[in-house]
Amino acid sequence: MSDVSTTTSPSPAPPAPTGPPPKVTNRGRTTVPLASSNSDTADIPEFEYFGVVGPRGLPPLTDYLDISGVDMMRRPDEINKKQHHTMFFNSDSLIVRRGQEFQVKITFNRPYKPAEDLFALEFLIGPTPDFSKGTYIPVFPIKQRKITWEGRVTNTSDNVVTMGITPTADCFVGKYHMTVAVKTPYGIRRTKWDKSRDLYILFNPWAAADAVFLDDERERQECVMTEMGIIYHGAYDDIAERNWNYGQFNYGVLDACLFIMDKCEMPITNRGDPVKVTRKASAMLNSRDDDGVLVGNWSGDYTYGVAPTSWTGSTDILLAYASSKMPVRYAQCWVYSAVFNTFLRCLGIPSRVVTNYFSAHDNDGNLKTDIILDENGRIDRSRTRDSIWNYHCWNECYMSRPDLPPGFGGWQVVDATPQETSDGMYRCGPASVQAIKHGQTCFPFDAAFVFAEVNSDVVFYARSKDGTMEPVRVNRTHVGRLIVTKAAGDVTRRDITDQYKFSEGSTEERTVLEKAEEYGCKRDKSELPAADVDLVLPSLEVSVGDDFELNLEFVNHSGQRRIVDAYISGSVVFYTGVPSSEFLFRDPTVTIGPNKTVKELVVVESKNYMKHLVEQSNLHFIATGKVKETGQIITAMKVVTLHNPKLIVTISERGKVNEEMTATVEFTNPFTFSLEDVYIRMEGPGIMLPKSKYYSLIPGGSSLTWTEYVIPQRYGSTRMIATLDCPAIRQVYGQASVAIEP
Amino acid sequence: MSDVSTTTSPSPAPPAPTGPPPKVTNRGRTTVPLASSNSDTADIPEFEYFGVVGPRGLPPLTDYLDISGVDMMRRPDEINKKQHHTMFFNSDSLIVRRGQEFQVKITFNRPYKPAEDLFALEFLIGPTPDFSKGTYIPVFPIKQRKITWEGRVTNTSDNVVTMGITPTADCFVGKYHMTVAVKTPYGIRRTKWDKSRDLYILFNPWAAADAVFLDDERERQECVMTEMGIIYHGAYDDIAERNWNYGQFNYGVLDACLFIMDKCEMPITNRGDPVKVTRKASAMLNSRDDDGVLVGNWSGDYTYGVAPTSWTGSTDILLAYASSKMPVRYAQCWVYSAVFNTFLRCLGIPSRVVTNYFSAHDNDGNLKTDIILDENGRIDRSRTRDSIWNYHCWNECYMSRPDLPPGFGGWQVVDATPQETSDGMYRCGPASVQAIKHGQTCFPFDAAFVFAEVNSDVVFYARSKDGTMEPVRVNRTHVGRLIVTKAAGDVTRRDITDQYKFSEGSTEERTVLEKAEEYGCKRDKSELPAADVDLVLPSLEVSVGDDFELNLEFVNHSGQRRIVDAYISGSVVFYTGVPSSEFLFRDPTVTIGPNKTVKELVVVESKNYMKHLVEQSNLHFIATGKVKETGQIITAMKVVTLHNPKLIVTISERGKVNEEMTATVEFTNPFTFSLEDVYIRMEGPGIMLPKSKYYSLIPGGSSLTWTEYVIPQRYGSTRMIATLDCPAIRQVYGQASVAIEP
Repeated sequence: MSDVSTTTSPSPAPPAPTGPPPKVTNRGRTTVPLASSNSDTADIPEFEYFGVVGPRGLPPLTDYLDISGVDMMRRPDEINKKQHHTMFFNSDSLIVRRGQEFQVKITFNRPYKPAEDLFALEFLIGPTPDFSKGTYIPVFPIKQRKITWEGRVTNTSDNVVTMGITPTADCFVGKYHMTVAVKTPYGIRRTKWDKSRDLYILFNPWAAADAVFLDDERERQECVMTEMGIIYHGAYDDIAERNWNYGQFNYGVLDACLFIMDKCEMPITNRGDPVKVTRKASAMLNSRDDDGVLVGNWSGDYTYGVAPTSWTGSTDILLAYASSKMPVRYAQCWVYSAVFNTFLRCLGIPSRVVTNYFSAHDNDGNLKTDIILDENGRIDRSRTRDSIWNYHCWNECYMSRPDLPPGFGGWQVVDATPQETSDGMYRCGPASVQAIKHGQTCFPFDAAFVFAEVNSDVVFYARSKDGTMEPVRVNRTHVGRLIVTKAAGDVTRRDITDQYKFSEGSTEERTVLEKAEEYGCKRDKSELPAADVDLVLPSLEVSVGDDFELNLEFVNHSGQRRIVDAYISGSVVFYTGVPSSEFLFRDPTVTIGPNKTVKELVVVESKNYMKHLVEQSNLHFIATGKVKETGQIITAMKVVTLHNPKLIVTISERGKVNEEMTATVEFTNPFTFSLEDVYIRMEGPGIMLPKSKYYSLIPGGSSLTWTEYVIPQRYGSTRMIATLDCPAIRQVYGQASVAIEP
Repeated sequence: MSDVSTTTSPSPAPPAPTGPPPKVTNRGRTTVPLASSNSDTADIPEFEYFGVVGPRGLPPLTDYLDISGVDMMRRPDEINKKQHHTMFFNSDSLIVRRGQEFQVKITFNRPYKPAEDLFALEFLIGPTPDFSKGTYIPVFPIKQRKITWEGRVTNTSDNVVTMGITPTADCFVGKYHMTVAVKTPYGIRRTKWDKSRDLYILFNPWAAADAVFLDDERERQECVMTEMGIIYHGAYDDIAERNWNYGQFNYGVLDACLFIMDKCEMPITNRGDPVKVTRKASAMLNSRDDDGVLVGNWSGDYTYGVAPTSWTGSTDILLAYASSKMPVRYAQCWVYSAVFNTFLRCLGIPSRVVTNYFSAHDNDGNLKTDIILDENGRIDRSRTRDSIWNYHCWNECYMSRPDLPPGFGGWQVVDATPQETSDGMYRCGPASVQAIKHGQTCFPFDAAFVFAEVNSDVVFYARSKDGTMEPVRVNRTHVGRLIVTKAAGDVTRRDITDQYKFSEGSTEERTVLEKAEEYGCKRDKSELPAADVDLVLPSLEVSVGDDFELNLEFVNHSGQRRIVDAYISGSVVFYTGVPSSEFLFRDPTVTIGPNKTVKELVVVESKNYMKHLVEQSNLHFIATGKVKETGQIITAMKVVTLHNPKLIVTISERGKVNEEMTATVEFTNPFTFSLEDVYIRMEGPGIMLPKSKYYSLIPGGSSLTWTEYVIPQRYGSTRMIATLDCPAIRQVYGQASVAIEP
């Protein structure tokens, strides 16, 4: 043997790399790189020779059919955009929906002779169009030659042929390029690449064969065509509304939505499946894992971005993301769901924003949320996890679920808010609402997680000094108290709790909970005797800055006297339920006669809570108590949402397209202190794109007025919305409706 | 109004950030940060006072119980490691399995009096131990005080108490810290933090209540305890074996496996669920998305790392990853599945490596793989996608599936090889093998994808000059031809194809395919008349460097003469099926008499293919033809795996623990050319850790010998394995068995 040099090395011993490693290629893995960008389309050759031997240069084409012009019929008032419900898009390109015929006009050098001439339209999507991957689609003008998309000549006149093309109802959604190819004896001759022949193909809720087909025109108008929406927040017994301009038809929004799928390198071949598109988008709408659209921030410090409460619509956010290609700051749950809604409606997937009051979070799909009390019944905040949000917003989108057994199509929950644990990733859904209602949490995706969000029990434990614990009370009705969405075609809300749950206490409800347990959801099984004393915290409507009274009721259902050692704690909390600071604590001892009710009055002064307020101004009261005679623990919880002052928005009573009108925002600082670093934002679909104005100081008691001259672009009824945002007070808004005449 | 300064800005207008944004905190989102690291455990206070008022400093403890020593009984020959099947771990720490009692000995300052003394063992995991999250577990010595884990005193003698602790069978898997807490009248007193009281709790296939319970000792011995495995590759009719040292008990491997979960910030609270652990690991074993363990490379250029064919075991890879915290270069499918297997066996999840011959890939769960022919029946490589791998390796792991309806527990497919499309992410599974067999592809995770890997049809299309295409032939038996794994307790292979599929042509098979179609798998529906001529490519066994003959058979089943225009193409291919270069092409015209067979002999000379060889030395022959009389297209495909020369490994006939012995590798270069840049690697479980040696040149025809002196650490039968790797020839290996005496 003759090894010139050898070296032996112990493990681990890969050769030391010098410099950065080269980019790993696909060479032995795939012949063609994966197509995962819709931003550019590779062209196919302008001339494709038949056979190896052929004339050099372009052959003489005098005798043969040649193309002299192509008209995509892409104006909003032409047949395509009207029939395809895409006339509102602010775009010069043709935008159509799949599974439905659209028309293009081709002008030849001479009349078309069907018997001898052969031409085809070719549709290409992505950087490596390929027939076998479905990214290159030739369409012939003769039905019998159909391969996938159908083509037919709908009209001929002189040299002009109008051709009708029907993309399949499951084709990829995105931006295509079209070429016209003519067969000559020497080879195939094609039109030059021209941006004007780009077209967008969207999902089609109007086409029965499309997976997103929704057979209800009123719902389609709301969930695909409506730009102006309402998102509910506050508390279930004191619901607040936030207007939002989804703006899915605004200039650039459609391209931004396609960019989102490009940014995460979603294969083009997955973009026809609404299950895959919505799942991927639920991951991409948040910046976790993947530099997605929105950075979450619940810290109260929004110095380096826009406060989540300040946004009025999605347009700003999506355009900023598409231009900077960097996550936009900042979002909380309603911003995630609002921008997700824009994405879905823009691509043609019917969708709506849903609010769940008392939403169980971060509990990994278990049906138990623990609250720990000390031996005396007082809440032990350091040992209590924080997993009930006052409310949470997610999206529902409408689609068939061919990947599941029959019965689970229809509305599906998707959620873009990053939570701790949803299959270990920051994404959620689509989860069938039907599956959630029936406890069939075994079906993808994340149904068990959403099930827990609306069905968890709250379990109170008493922890003794030596560390042992025992359950003392279970509240089975607190979580998922109410689920609402905006009604279709109306500016009212709709209670859809019954879509998610059978009625409280029904046999069906019990069966469903058992079913879900079979699929691994963990529940509390404690059999606890009902307490004979009830603690009730009544509902309240309070404006920020007001002093108010909390009227705690102790109801004795027993025939004996009862003495209760009670603890009442008031905290300022984020809408996520996380306490910021405790501003009130009382520990009265209350004596209640047999079958009597005693009221305990607690006065809450604004000076105590005002300095602690965080952006959504929620006060959280927990009252607990221990009945001396029985040792039973009693509890009550209440969220009081403080009502903010309002912006007054006024707009000229009647407006006309292309005629100037005025929009005005007025605000009076109702407090005795000054507001600093104030942003006011205003926008109205079809009237005005988002604009913001900065006020460095608004002294206490003083007023401001901001007037804008605007020119409506579109007729129809619409709204102008405005928000005011500053560190001292968030969530101030106002709105005005207006009808624009043509 | 009195705004000192105002600015109006058009959209989008977030205030320009100056400098990098601050780290976004959890402040309003969660009270306690998410625990997702198992590398350090926060301690709890050494003294916890009762009440606000108490003496300063430690109180006098003369009267009270105090701890003077703790013995974790962690030696391999003590009861814990023996009973828990963890005696092979090369680790000083206690390692036990959940759902099964283990013992610790506590020495007090005086005898323990059960009636008056109160103490507890506390187990903590992760940076923020918390009772309600299950990351802080107090265990009392009295059964009645059990909260979750059971405790009991198993023995007392003088001042020493032996306590038995039974972690719940669903507790989190990972590294815990244990403290002993004693109650005194002033508060709770605890032992100081001490690394010697760290313990590891693993999954337990021996415990009936554990989700990974496997009721078969032979399978448990193979799939949890066996370090030395065999991975099958090559072709279904010429199977090759590769030995692999999983090394799950080697020093540092367990910590490396826990580090993998830390690296991806997997919440501690998810680490008790084998479904979540295996799913997450399938993502983390590859470096895509998440800087996981292994970088895939199919390029043939491995200059900056170790060639995938060169590894002999998992230890090197896992230790390198844990120490560098950076992805290790390079892997192909068997390396992913082998290292994944180590991860699973190390944590106690029964697992095995499985090989599927002709595996359909990158087709997104559809049951169709297209091959495009031109008008004459010759393959059009530029239009043909590349999605049948000659073979593919994945893992099966054993667990119950409480998240699915009954019947889908047992073996589950997980796959760490990054593929184009598995739910849009680079991960796959766990998918129930039962669900795959029965076409129940609606259940998570990725069952439809794996179903397609073993069930796709190969569809041949003919493409005419004008671009139209039509299916001309469908091969329904090519894909998923054979599925094998190593037999338990034996060094033979086991055919497990019937676990994945009903027999070809059975009624069940048809039903299953229809079921899968209902769940959205797309199949080819072409009704094609059976051709009356068959094309057969016989099996071949060929050594690299040999000339050989390919004997193509044309079988005419008709009563008429048939003339076939045939095309025979030979290419060097990667094991992924991607062609590297075509080295042979013939286009004979063959005339076959009625009911006759004609053989067409094609001579393949090594000089033609040798210069094109890529690492796995596969030759791929496709023969196609068009029958002149009927226009029918006939096809045949064959992969010929070239056999490499072997390493000769010899080892002293008998060995004894702690006695030196020799291991020798010999190799002769059988070629006329020199081999350059040669690495030889050798390792043997319990005998020798991986070592490698570098030879800059091995001239043609020359031999080398490498002898190592080794000292066995463990008794039992084991194997020494070696690989040789250089750019000109990969996959050269050899092995020798040996029995080590105690």
